[in-house]
Amino acid sequence: MSDRPETPLLDRVSSPADLKHFSDAELTRLAHELRAETVATVSKTGGHLGAGLGVVELTVALHAVFDTPQDKIIWDVSHQCYPHKILTGRRDRMGTIRQQNGISGFTKRSESPYDPFGAAHSSTSISAALGFKVAADLGGNSPVGHGDAIAVIGDGAMTGGMAFEAMNNAGHLKKRMFVVLNDNEMSIGQPTGALSSYLTRLYAEAPMQDLKAAAKGAVSLLPEPFREGAKRAKEMLKGMALGGTLFEELGFSYVGPIDGHDMDQLLPILRTLRERATGPVLLHVVTKKGKGYAHAEYAPDKGHARGKFDVVSGKQHKAPSNAPSYTKVFADQLIKQAADDPQICAVTAAMPDGTGLDLFAERYPSRCFDVGIAEQHGVTFCAALAAGGMKPFCAMYSTFLQRGYDQVVHDVAIQRLPVRFAIDRAGLVGADGATHAGSYDIAYMANLPGMVVMAAADEAELCHMIATAAAHDAGPIAFRYPRGEGQGVDMPERGEVLEIGKGRMIQEGARVAILSFGTRLGEVMKASEALQARGIKPTVADARFAKPLDRDLILSLAREHEALITIEEGAVGGFGSHVGQLLAEEGVFDRGLKYRSMVLPDVFIDQASPSAMYDVAAMNAEHIEAKVLNVLGVEVLDKRA
Amino acid sequence: MSDRPETPLLDRVSSPADLKHFSDAELTRLAHELRAETVATVSKTGGHLGAGLGVVELTVALHAVFDTPQDKIIWDVSHQCYPHKILTGRRDRMGTIRQQNGISGFTKRSESPYDPFGAAHSSTSISAALGFKVAADLGGNSPVGHGDAIAVIGDGAMTGGMAFEAMNNAGHLKKRMFVVLNDNEMSIGQPTGALSSYLTRLYAEAPMQDLKAAAKGAVSLLPEPFREGAKRAKEMLKGMALGGTLFEELGFSYVGPIDGHDMDQLLPILRTLRERATGPVLLHVVTKKGKGYAHAEYAPDKGHARGKFDVVSGKQHKAPSNAPSYTKVFADQLIKQAADDPQICAVTAAMPDGTGLDLFAERYPSRCFDVGIAEQHGVTFCAALAAGGMKPFCAMYSTFLQRGYDQVVHDVAIQRLPVRFAIDRAGLVGADGATHAGSYDIAYMANLPGMVVMAAADEAELCHMIATAAAHDAGPIAFRYPRGEGQGVDMPERGEVLEIGKGRMIQEGARVAILSFGTRLGEVMKASEALQARGIKPTVADARFAKPLDRDLILSLAREHEALITIEEGAVGGFGSHVGQLLAEEGVFDRGLKYRSMVLPDVFIDQASPSAMYDVAAMNAEHIEAKVLNVLGVEVLDKRA
Repeated sequence: MSDRPETPLLDRVSSPADLKHFSDAELTRLAHELRAETVATVSKTGGHLGAGLGVVELTVALHAVFDTPQDKIIWDVSHQCYPHKILTGRRDRMGTIRQQNGISGFTKRSESPYDPFGAAHSSTSISAALGFKVAADLGGNSPVGHGDAIAVIGDGAMTGGMAFEAMNNAGHLKKRMFVVLNDNEMSIGQPTGALSSYLTRLYAEAPMQDLKAAAKGAVSLLPEPFREGAKRAKEMLKGMALGGTLFEELGFSYVGPIDGHDMDQLLPILRTLRERATGPVLLHVVTKKGKGYAHAEYAPDKGHARGKFDVVSGKQHKAPSNAPSYTKVFADQLIKQAADDPQICAVTAAMPDGTGLDLFAERYPSRCFDVGIAEQHGVTFCAALAAGGMKPFCAMYSTFLQRGYDQVVHDVAIQRLPVRFAIDRAGLVGADGATHAGSYDIAYMANLPGMVVMAAADEAELCHMIATAAAHDAGPIAFRYPRGEGQGVDMPERGEVLEIGKGRMIQEGARVAILSFGTRLGEVMKASEALQARGIKPTVADARFAKPLDRDLILSLAREHEALITIEEGAVGGFGSHVGQLLAEEGVFDRGLKYRSMVLPDVFIDQASPSAMYDVAAMNAEHIEAKVLNVLGVEVLDKRA
Repeated sequence: MSDRPETPLLDRVSSPADLKHFSDAELTRLAHELRAETVATVSKTGGHLGAGLGVVELTVALHAVFDTPQDKIIWDVSHQCYPHKILTGRRDRMGTIRQQNGISGFTKRSESPYDPFGAAHSSTSISAALGFKVAADLGGNSPVGHGDAIAVIGDGAMTGGMAFEAMNNAGHLKKRMFVVLNDNEMSIGQPTGALSSYLTRLYAEAPMQDLKAAAKGAVSLLPEPFREGAKRAKEMLKGMALGGTLFEELGFSYVGPIDGHDMDQLLPILRTLRERATGPVLLHVVTKKGKGYAHAEYAPDKGHARGKFDVVSGKQHKAPSNAPSYTKVFADQLIKQAADDPQICAVTAAMPDGTGLDLFAERYPSRCFDVGIAEQHGVTFCAALAAGGMKPFCAMYSTFLQRGYDQVVHDVAIQRLPVRFAIDRAGLVGADGATHAGSYDIAYMANLPGMVVMAAADEAELCHMIATAAAHDAGPIAFRYPRGEGQGVDMPERGEVLEIGKGRMIQEGARVAILSFGTRLGEVMKASEALQARGIKPTVADARFAKPLDRDLILSLAREHEALITIEEGAVGGFGSHVGQLLAEEGVFDRGLKYRSMVLPDVFIDQASPSAMYDVAAMNAEHIEAKVLNVLGVEVLDKRA
């Protein structure tokens, strides 16, 4: 316990109600303790660090001023919720965060009444706050009662279109609600232009007369070094184009900017707002991501997400890596392809690191576009790039591409435009849990006419699929690959262009054929070894394509085997459903075929290691083996029987 | 031909290049002719009228000033494209608009090089214009060459989040491009507040110095009655909160407002902009929807969409209606449900008429929310309403719900919140064509854990499903129903609450069972009659639920019949795929079953009557009959053999 910080005040907090007995000075000290506790916690568990450190004071102040859980604090994205969790009765479970059977790294309704609305994707909090407020006014049957609704949203998240939609609607409805703009100097795009007097002017003209003095006071309270920060904030707000006037035009009263690390500003302003606000209020708070922990504050990513680390040195305990990550393989291959083809360009939506496009941008800055948290725009932007004769690679996580689904249908597929979708984080993703699972892309892409859908079985296959996508000008094409490291296979210098709609045989066997789509192939081969020890050698094939299907391969597998099993890292409706549809239409089932389709089960799977999540999904080698034995009617006299 | 207007100038236009020879006075007269031609055309074909009439002058001016198709005009939504089509070589085909084998009612890339980017859904044009501009700068292989990119977007479409995302990105990239804000006084929400001097002040401070005079001149050119219109425009812009400052903050130069019906303003300003603009420009144009045709201009909907009509009287030729529309049935039943249950409320995204919520709003104004063109926000707003104890009905068209897909997954399904999705326009929709088809909702809803998915077989079933949804508090639930009129069945006074996951037997037969999901049931029964004439009486069942499936029903149908055929108005991946998965997992295929799944084919089906579209899809009675005969191996000696 010697490495735990001293936390005498925090030790007296079992729920936010306890904060009501603290003096302002004690609340300030509590915030310091909470920061130290957060660093100590994440050092042992890994997880999102910088965002939480940036809102320690805000977390304390909101819980001290408002009456949660009747008043509802909605954390946008919610990776900044660790201090909130510590204050709301989950301190003793913080050691389990992001682990199997532990608490989530995000807010989660099922976990606590203090989490009124879960999140993990961006820009939803204002819509949620408005919904709670309207439900309160209409007398909804809320189990915890009604109160105020407070959305806490970062400057990056504010660029998402739905945040704008929600502001527009909230301003129209004119209901009392609070949006805390947590401007943490991590805007997505580059700050543009020179210092603007924009926010200052707005501030001086603040329309909430009664608050004017408080707000004015707040700015003058900014310490000297912080004024520089406030300037930067204005600059960035100019970059993202959301100044006070916009908020006021949207019907919000604008208050700020104030120092989000100064309890002497936060507490009185929040109290005043709580007492006097009659309509929608936007409170502009300037914070530092990673605040108070130098190894985070001064890191390029402000300590955004961390593995376990040493608190003193800030060094992460990292497992040695054997194979390159799929993301890195994608970046390297795309750079190689782009060297020969000036039409290749790349687009991502605020995920340059996560998708590897940061590397592409270093090499080809003029051909790389980070559009911000804006998947809808990003997809349509790609569609027009393609219409204008470019070869755009649209690199997004499977779960976030859902945000651009209508644009995939309406702008890309219907127009048959050759956008290349590089779908990262396909399948189950581990510690980020259910909200980040890439479970649906096979289904929602493969039923679009003209779409080509591939999944890489390993990192070499991914290279081939990048080359295939680059060469495919006839229409849209998508390839998916998982989070994490590859299989360690030999890598080609350059990917080869695959024949569209053709799979590959991996192993000839008898009785049962396993047709794999994606990286379950490794588990299939493990299962095959175990089965061979039982005298059953399955035929194994890699489908490569969910669309178009390799009809010849599938029909011959069906013809030549007693059983056919498909497996994919996706929900029902995808690859297996397309195979089933083919087999049905071809009359294969008429004469009998032991057909099974292994898909993700019909549950949202909570965080764990990816492998443990695939255990829950019953899609690891032992489950494949059991499925084969079951379908062949082989009696098994071991524990799996 | 006597009812055709005189169009001597228009008769000389075979492509926009011909406009280059016209004087400004001739262009003005041409616009008058084009307006008359548009009215005459739509009177014979039906279609979108008001939007096109509002942009007649703008259409002529844009084509006269810019060099299309190298310069790319991108019409947002594009239902205002009729005058554009007339000018761009499609005048002789306007009589076929929105008809089978005719031209589309929207822009369409495959139809003309003058349609660089198709549309039909809203708010995509700025993303598209930016994509074209970037592709031009990067040297994309455009078949028609590169030029300027001009997005024409309405004030309503500007409220969509992706338009904001695109503006944000365009301002950051600083490329020369044009956004024409067509402010047609048809903003979605109510205009709010008093007259604001906001735009006027901005206008006076217009930053493009060289344009200042022209722009200033433009406003003073506004005729007296029009000034009132400009005032209203400002008011509405205040309501939608997009004033000049916002555009400037986003990096755009703002010019306007100008009278979009005055060629003496449009032509010089567009010429100046074309000559001098170096970065992104927003031109604010005020127009009147329905302009120049009194029966449109003074109609409540400004002649938005019309059936065929008499030009002189404005009266529409309407087929007599026998059964109520599904939309009307939904509205009536929801009103009845809401009478007993104060928790019921309703949300739509700028589709109050189309979803019937206009009727609900008349009865329960405080419980009805039109959030604007904002499906993402709308869905999450519903999620929070549900979390706050309300029973929200989220009424959207299937095709538009795609815009809120991620929110359905992330905010509703993962949190198991009891949002009721009323999915209108499910299946093929007729004249609006492929872009409006509701083909994917079964697939994208039914693979979400915890989601209940129903489809109404007729309008009485719809009543039951509304009652069922109202009563279902355990999690999210969706019900889908088609565009158009019901079957004319007897209607219950009130819907009954259905047992979740239970289908119903319609007819006991032998050999073959047809399991229908949705309104194909009528065609199934027609097919059944024809089959009985051949001595085959199929068993017919209505699944009602795609999720959860009625396992007992399905397995007993499979057990007791030689063949089982499912049918649904949706793409592969939906109901039939879930049935197939069940049959596979239960080992039904092991012993052989003639299983077929009739789904929408793997093509985007162009506009026609819904029935004709289902002919293309091979899903009408004769196709069902043929499918049954084929699967049973019955030789047919008629034309279908």
